[in-house]
Amino acid sequence: MKKDGKKKKPLILLTNDDGINARGLAALAGEMGALGEVVIVAPDSERSAAGHAITLTEPLRAEKVYKNGDFYGYAVNGTPADAVKVAVLSLLGEKPDLVVSGINRGPNTGTNVIYSGTVSAATEAAILGIKAIAVSLGTFAEADYTAAAEYIRSLSREVLTRSLPPGILLNVNVPAVPADRIKGVKVVHQGIARFREVMAKREDLRGRPYFWLGGELDSPEEDRGSDNCALNDDYIAVTPLHFDMTDYDFLKKLKGWDCW
Amino acid sequence: MKKDGKKKKPLILLTNDDGINARGLAALAGEMGALGEVVIVAPDSERSAAGHAITLTEPLRAEKVYKNGDFYGYAVNGTPADAVKVAVLSLLGEKPDLVVSGINRGPNTGTNVIYSGTVSAATEAAILGIKAIAVSLGTFAEADYTAAAEYIRSLSREVLTRSLPPGILLNVNVPAVPADRIKGVKVVHQGIARFREVMAKREDLRGRPYFWLGGELDSPEEDRGSDNCALNDDYIAVTPLHFDMTDYDFLKKLKGWDCW
Repeated sequence: MKKDGKKKKPLILLTNDDGINARGLAALAGEMGALGEVVIVAPDSERSAAGHAITLTEPLRAEKVYKNGDFYGYAVNGTPADAVKVAVLSLLGEKPDLVVSGINRGPNTGTNVIYSGTVSAATEAAILGIKAIAVSLGTFAEADYTAAAEYIRSLSREVLTRSLPPGILLNVNVPAVPADRIKGVKVVHQGIARFREVMAKREDLRGRPYFWLGGELDSPEEDRGSDNCALNDDYIAVTPLHFDMTDYDFLKKLKGWDCW
Repeated sequence: MKKDGKKKKPLILLTNDDGINARGLAALAGEMGALGEVVIVAPDSERSAAGHAITLTEPLRAEKVYKNGDFYGYAVNGTPADAVKVAVLSLLGEKPDLVVSGINRGPNTGTNVIYSGTVSAATEAAILGIKAIAVSLGTFAEADYTAAAEYIRSLSREVLTRSLPPGILLNVNVPAVPADRIKGVKVVHQGIARFREVMAKREDLRGRPYFWLGGELDSPEEDRGSDNCALNDDYIAVTPLHFDMTDYDFLKKLKGWDCW
């Protein structure tokens, strides 16, 4: 509560991994303004598959970006996790109440979550003790972000009023279909969908070999409770993630190995 | 079994995030040769805090590196996860039996695991269905890697003969003390140790502001079963990790939210 008795508007930090000029981020910003004060701090260019990389050996810059003459946000020459760190530890001057990362072009489900810059920005916020949501649209094509942005505004209102346990973020994947074809919301676990990869080996124009990673999204048979199944069935998939990677089941068995 | 009846030697891929010229990698290579055929494929320079970044938008190169006239390994101009992908999907021509990533200069315990290029290389191997170990030494100073390398040879022999469940890797942190002062091995969970960060804001020689991330390793009070506690007590800390980040406890509670 401020001294004048008015409740302070929530401070909401928006970021992404597609870069500050991405349409998905603009769509999100358009909706989130209704909930509080919105500040955008995002990578200056696309940083897809940045994982949870951070920049230690080089300085970072934060350049002001204007749209139609108005201040739009800060462009950081680093990864999504860098953008969150610069924002929270310096630019904002205070901890935001919520960080939302997205709306990513392309789903972040299954094993792909590990590579996701979108998710890593929200993970970084959770590490810094801030409520966080990552949101992705289920297509790699440019598409309509309206339904996803509206849903995230509604989910964000819930998250701002409820408690999330420390260290937990919500990973949200929205099907790329018109709003009236979205069947509902499912709370699901991270599944095993991943890219079936190929490493193409080619020669450049000087005859020197190079490698280039490609692949196709593979949706293996998996249980109905997974993120990718829900998304493929046209449900919004919501998955609570944490950053403790310990496998507690195997930890017990590992203690039983006789070689320690 | 080969046609001649002899058991094929295990194929062991070594990588790291400190770069192909790191002393920790050389120490590891020296020991691991006793267990099988060793191939080194590592980043061409230091990629600490690379997280699980991979390179999608640029080609990768793999240059042969020689030491004292002998072939030493391949230097890849990418992240640790890139190095594993190039090795497994192209250079090796077959799946290795084991991937070992390290020996990292500096511990990878607690929340820092999320940022670790060393761990991400082993995670990448686990994603590709290969047994994997990440190993780090508990000091950021250049130190003696002998005890850590010897322990990893012994652990690797165990891992090669036993089964690890799919998708599980072992994260090992070895105290930076002489071998006779290491008290033993503890199987522990990933704790909550992390860097307390500062984002320094300075001005360059042209008066333009820049940001630079720094910080100190912070070991908060935590239970005795954590990786960082074991390491600080001069035990080798072994933690089984997986790449399912779902928080299953909170998933149940989240299903009970009345807003879905």
